[in-house]
Amino acid sequence: MSNRKHFLRSAATLAVGSSILTAGQLSARADDSVPHSKPESAPKKIIALEEHFMLPEFVTYLAETKQNIKPALFNNVVPVLSDFGAGRLEVMDKNGIDFAVLSLSGPGVQIEPDREQAVKLARYANDRLAEEMHNNPHRYGGFAHLAMQDPREAARELERCVRQLKMQGAMINGETNGLYLDDRRYDIFWEKVQELDVPVYLHPGNPPDHPHMFTDHPEMWGPVWSWAVETCSHAMRLIFSGTFDRFPGAKIILGHMGETLPIQLWRLDSRIQTANLKYALKEVPSYYVRKNIFITTSGVCCDAALRCALDSIGPENVMFPVDYPFEKTDIASRWIRSASVSEAERNAVAWQNASLLMKL
Amino acid sequence: MSNRKHFLRSAATLAVGSSILTAGQLSARADDSVPHSKPESAPKKIIALEEHFMLPEFVTYLAETKQNIKPALFNNVVPVLSDFGAGRLEVMDKNGIDFAVLSLSGPGVQIEPDREQAVKLARYANDRLAEEMHNNPHRYGGFAHLAMQDPREAARELERCVRQLKMQGAMINGETNGLYLDDRRYDIFWEKVQELDVPVYLHPGNPPDHPHMFTDHPEMWGPVWSWAVETCSHAMRLIFSGTFDRFPGAKIILGHMGETLPIQLWRLDSRIQTANLKYALKEVPSYYVRKNIFITTSGVCCDAALRCALDSIGPENVMFPVDYPFEKTDIASRWIRSASVSEAERNAVAWQNASLLMKL
Repeated sequence: MSNRKHFLRSAATLAVGSSILTAGQLSARADDSVPHSKPESAPKKIIALEEHFMLPEFVTYLAETKQNIKPALFNNVVPVLSDFGAGRLEVMDKNGIDFAVLSLSGPGVQIEPDREQAVKLARYANDRLAEEMHNNPHRYGGFAHLAMQDPREAARELERCVRQLKMQGAMINGETNGLYLDDRRYDIFWEKVQELDVPVYLHPGNPPDHPHMFTDHPEMWGPVWSWAVETCSHAMRLIFSGTFDRFPGAKIILGHMGETLPIQLWRLDSRIQTANLKYALKEVPSYYVRKNIFITTSGVCCDAALRCALDSIGPENVMFPVDYPFEKTDIASRWIRSASVSEAERNAVAWQNASLLMKL
Repeated sequence: MSNRKHFLRSAATLAVGSSILTAGQLSARADDSVPHSKPESAPKKIIALEEHFMLPEFVTYLAETKQNIKPALFNNVVPVLSDFGAGRLEVMDKNGIDFAVLSLSGPGVQIEPDREQAVKLARYANDRLAEEMHNNPHRYGGFAHLAMQDPREAARELERCVRQLKMQGAMINGETNGLYLDDRRYDIFWEKVQELDVPVYLHPGNPPDHPHMFTDHPEMWGPVWSWAVETCSHAMRLIFSGTFDRFPGAKIILGHMGETLPIQLWRLDSRIQTANLKYALKEVPSYYVRKNIFITTSGVCCDAALRCALDSIGPENVMFPVDYPFEKTDIASRWIRSASVSEAERNAVAWQNASLLMKL
């Protein structure tokens, strides 16, 4: 820290008059980004909505994400993911999580080469999830797992999951065989999403290529950075292709504090005016972000980032998850209770927005 | 807007008790992201540091960026870029810009296939810039243009530009022939940067590949999104490769509100613990961001984004530019005078941090 301190000291020596920063003032704000340890002020309840599980049949798919994290971590996480009972509920109880919307940990059948097998296994995963929801109806909701290789079947299965199995929406793990959700072949799927009025959680996945910028940097591949790049790009594709003009009622959820979107809105609206457009949007990009995109705080327990999200996208668009078990429930839960936001904002994020969006 | 309004209305109907949001409360914060029209409170002065120029010999290189913007815009911008005199100074005067650090608009010689020609042309560009600085010493500073194909020569030319031509640092436009600045062949360059104690402005450039996520989306290629992805990745490569451990005095500047970095710090520090590391960093990633990386507000005139940057990276790391003539000077200048920040923060951003960093 010595260099920064030297810098701050020289800043202080420059101070002349009341409008000039002192070293103390300079450093005060920076510390705000560190989670506070204020007295906790519990929200009325907490709904968490990026809470993963695993089934034995899907571990081979999950292994595709091994490249993104330390091997030891991968091995430790599978048993925790696979527990729907005492272990999971104990962690929820201990940390005041009232309700968890569960989702199969990706990429799941989206990387299954056999389309029929993918469709079959997705149905199986959803039936198993529905059982667990049925066993703990006051604690567990669910996002459908879908074989996006087959848009028509994905739409049909989503309908079954929502209408019959009482799920809250779907989770999709990035592109499928190189196809993003703005491809017109997915119109049939978006039509159903709009009709059912449920959100689609767009979870990160690895793209089919390995862009040059990540060469020789395995640490940047996965949750550190490439997943945000890929998922934010996916969301932008939906905006810029006019998917939300065709399906104005469609809603997606982005995790990880919106995969950097909240800090980008002004620039998107400004630069799109100079860009080479293939499709002329009806509205500015930020319009769709605020209307069709909801974000969660998963893996970002940071006041400065949350403030940016609340102020740019709007407090009605931000929701709380843990990203269990990849993120620590105690850290996430303690943070949402103590973050520097108003009580109204805290309740909106902790449960109210999720409750409205998913009719819980 | 009708869907959002419906949503807000249903939010209001849910309101029970004092801790629950009403529609009015929900929408109030979202509007904060729109630039305010408050009474202006002028900072003591304004230094702008991403202000571009063009010379006839470099227009063919600039044309590489044609793919990123509308052709009409490209043609209109070249004459404006090429003016060092009345036109440029008039815009500065009219908008209260006291001092501009000029830089050749990229990618310049970094895409010149002939290394010797690149070295020669870079020297020529710097000599021309030095002339313009000499003609208006109280209005213009300069960032050196460097042939990064030749790290040793780039270091030598940087030294000439700083010591003899009195420039404030260098501007580098992304990778060169696929090589990023964390390549060990650039150690000789970073050694010189550290010795001279000048910043390197890491400006966006197009990467050598075209990642799959941008396929069929020309509007995402360039300032809308791919440049942020590429430049933020470049900065992360410098962090994760240990460049700042080897050269703790090296400083880089990122434009465009830090190319999304401010919203990422918590996640970087958290996820790096689970990542496959090639190099074990001495400190957490955010340490290097706060110590070795400075950011500018170019092209992001947004209070919510600025607040996030000030709170996460620190008010001593944020500086003001216009990104002339690609961004509008009146919008940027009006914004920095009226943004919702303290007077101390406004002065720090508008001139004081730049003054300290570049010894102006």
